[in-house]
Amino acid sequence: MRTSPGPLSRLRRSHEQKVLGLLRRHGPLSRAELGQRTTLSRTTLYDIVGTLVASGAIVTAPGSDGPRKRGRPVERLTLNPAAGQAVGIDFARRAVHVAAVNVAHEVIGAVSETHPPDLPWPRRVELAERLAVSLGDGTVRLSALGAVGGVGVGVVGPVGPPAGPGQQDGGAGSGGPHAALPPLLEKRFGAPVLLDNNTRLAALAEATWGVATGHQDVLYLRLSDGVGGGLVADGGLHRGVDGLSGELGHITADPGGRRCECGGTGCLETVASVGAVLDAYRSRGGTAPGMPAFLAAVAAGDPVAREVLAAAGGYVGTVLAAVCNAVGPSVIVLGGALTEAGEALFGPVRRALHAHLMPLMRDRISLRRAALGDAGGAYGGIALVLRESPLLAHYPGPDAGTGAGPADAKEDT
Amino acid sequence: MRTSPGPLSRLRRSHEQKVLGLLRRHGPLSRAELGQRTTLSRTTLYDIVGTLVASGAIVTAPGSDGPRKRGRPVERLTLNPAAGQAVGIDFARRAVHVAAVNVAHEVIGAVSETHPPDLPWPRRVELAERLAVSLGDGTVRLSALGAVGGVGVGVVGPVGPPAGPGQQDGGAGSGGPHAALPPLLEKRFGAPVLLDNNTRLAALAEATWGVATGHQDVLYLRLSDGVGGGLVADGGLHRGVDGLSGELGHITADPGGRRCECGGTGCLETVASVGAVLDAYRSRGGTAPGMPAFLAAVAAGDPVAREVLAAAGGYVGTVLAAVCNAVGPSVIVLGGALTEAGEALFGPVRRALHAHLMPLMRDRISLRRAALGDAGGAYGGIALVLRESPLLAHYPGPDAGTGAGPADAKEDT
Repeated sequence: MRTSPGPLSRLRRSHEQKVLGLLRRHGPLSRAELGQRTTLSRTTLYDIVGTLVASGAIVTAPGSDGPRKRGRPVERLTLNPAAGQAVGIDFARRAVHVAAVNVAHEVIGAVSETHPPDLPWPRRVELAERLAVSLGDGTVRLSALGAVGGVGVGVVGPVGPPAGPGQQDGGAGSGGPHAALPPLLEKRFGAPVLLDNNTRLAALAEATWGVATGHQDVLYLRLSDGVGGGLVADGGLHRGVDGLSGELGHITADPGGRRCECGGTGCLETVASVGAVLDAYRSRGGTAPGMPAFLAAVAAGDPVAREVLAAAGGYVGTVLAAVCNAVGPSVIVLGGALTEAGEALFGPVRRALHAHLMPLMRDRISLRRAALGDAGGAYGGIALVLRESPLLAHYPGPDAGTGAGPADAKEDT
Repeated sequence: MRTSPGPLSRLRRSHEQKVLGLLRRHGPLSRAELGQRTTLSRTTLYDIVGTLVASGAIVTAPGSDGPRKRGRPVERLTLNPAAGQAVGIDFARRAVHVAAVNVAHEVIGAVSETHPPDLPWPRRVELAERLAVSLGDGTVRLSALGAVGGVGVGVVGPVGPPAGPGQQDGGAGSGGPHAALPPLLEKRFGAPVLLDNNTRLAALAEATWGVATGHQDVLYLRLSDGVGGGLVADGGLHRGVDGLSGELGHITADPGGRRCECGGTGCLETVASVGAVLDAYRSRGGTAPGMPAFLAAVAAGDPVAREVLAAAGGYVGTVLAAVCNAVGPSVIVLGGALTEAGEALFGPVRRALHAHLMPLMRDRISLRRAALGDAGGAYGGIALVLRESPLLAHYPGPDAGTGAGPADAKEDT
């Protein structure tokens, strides 16, 4: 049985972070210089440095045999530039989103392109590569794609737990509809590939760079054409059995309600997806060819549009409250097209949450609107690589609050 | 931000487990003997052994300077007997339960004693000490209490996340109604104390020695005087914000229902606790002074008793399905007094689960009856210590399926 890291491995990790942080701030340093600055014992420091070199996180600095002391070359150590870069890709239903960070884990940017839903996978991979190259600049040489430490990839649908180190598929889990994707991407990008569900990755992204930065327990729900979610538990992405964590869209919201595509009845998706909300609006005489027209009606104060949205929000808040009582997140993040309605949606969600959250929890959970938009899944791919790629295992995650991320944390909505 | 252990730290941990496993099976071994048996490189082995010695998990075997080779003493290493023992205590509302394991992490046994609900804390601690001493035998010298590596303690109500290493309160979290308990226990037992909610610990116990042994994601629900739960996520105890994870008893089950003690309305506890079920039975003309009489009526085929139980089971299954769709556990464990009704409860629970679980999940989640009974919280205290105590951080958990645990896994109920 896998266990959480004990205090000793946490201590070790904090030593490693200290060494990496010094190399990041000061550039190449000798072991002696590291020893002075870390105040670690010689034995501990050599042990830590040995592990970091073995993992590829740090390397001997080029031309570091300059000044000598008593005949021995003073070797300087530096961050491995090849290990620091990461690319995130979200293969959504009708679009590819790509984001990238440089060695310092600052976001270079994100870029998207839509495509027909039936575009074959090799063409989607080509598109992803082209988008990644377009993100590169002289500094990070992404255009060469030779310096990428890892690629984190989001896909639609359940993805099982990642494979362990040494397994061939680079983290895609065994079998599954996406088994062929990682090898294809590894060949293209020349880097290890980690795969996960894209909505779950959007949750991880919000907990890494978005409105839930620094929070250990985050519940994410996306209200779009489909309704899905993701859970960050104890700071890590929670996957569940066979990757089936986060299916909030298929929690029963209306027991006497409509049949859902999943085979269930009255799932949250049947009452709170974009399609469900538009259907409800039209069935009450509203005219809206799509979301923009519906959102305009909401903004103009159309009472039917607002009632329809309030009903959907009530279901959303009730379902979220049930999950919160079980899981105890400190932040709920709502994302997706429906959240563009703002307070007309968030108000009813908040009221239902208040009614159904255990009173002890009400003040401890904040409801926020997602900050990362459509690129959330791609950013989450990067976050996954920074946490789980073997090459990058010893890299500290992005600092919270440095402003390096794509979005500053927003106030509670 | 805390992150999950990367593949490299997992690799390191597996090396440590290998070394500890060899010492457990073979008794004291020299570094050379360990090297032959592990096939680790000399550098890696010395590094691993150094860490284990530094942590106190292994020590130099007494009298190990016997045969010498070229003048150097052959030092043999052995498991630290003082680091292996652990005691678990559950301070329930009206009883204290105590369980203990020896150095090999075999359960010595568990013992309980009831007390009035208003018994003062110092008296409860005395009672726990007396029960612990009564469990000790010559082999483990528990009677001296000098060799206990850690004490894991369950209490009623929310308990925040544990304090980090080096913090004074030994893991109780800061403040809270139980802040005074760990120092009291540390003085009595002469060992570090870790504190958590007792229902959550029962969940951990079932995932360690009970019906969910070896499962990474386990949802536990106890149906007794109160209704509460616990979540094991990714193999670790999930705590949530301020320790508020696992409050399944306060998920809304019947929106138009009764007021709950928590301040909410129609919580699962108002329809599926022992008191709620007895009330429902009496309101329909049934006569049952308590649970034993009610269970006898169920067993005798009393249709009203069975209908009341079926209604409660329906609520339980519906709430469990909602949480499962969000969390994706591989096992649901039901415990508490109500589960003594057996299939008359489990049948309706299973039917409601089937109706409300996302169809993809139905075959992946199994429903089982708890195996550890009233001592579950105390066993969970031990499991907590074996996973999280600094002294024991490098000890492998109990092996699944060795029969060393208190209960063999049961078939699905």
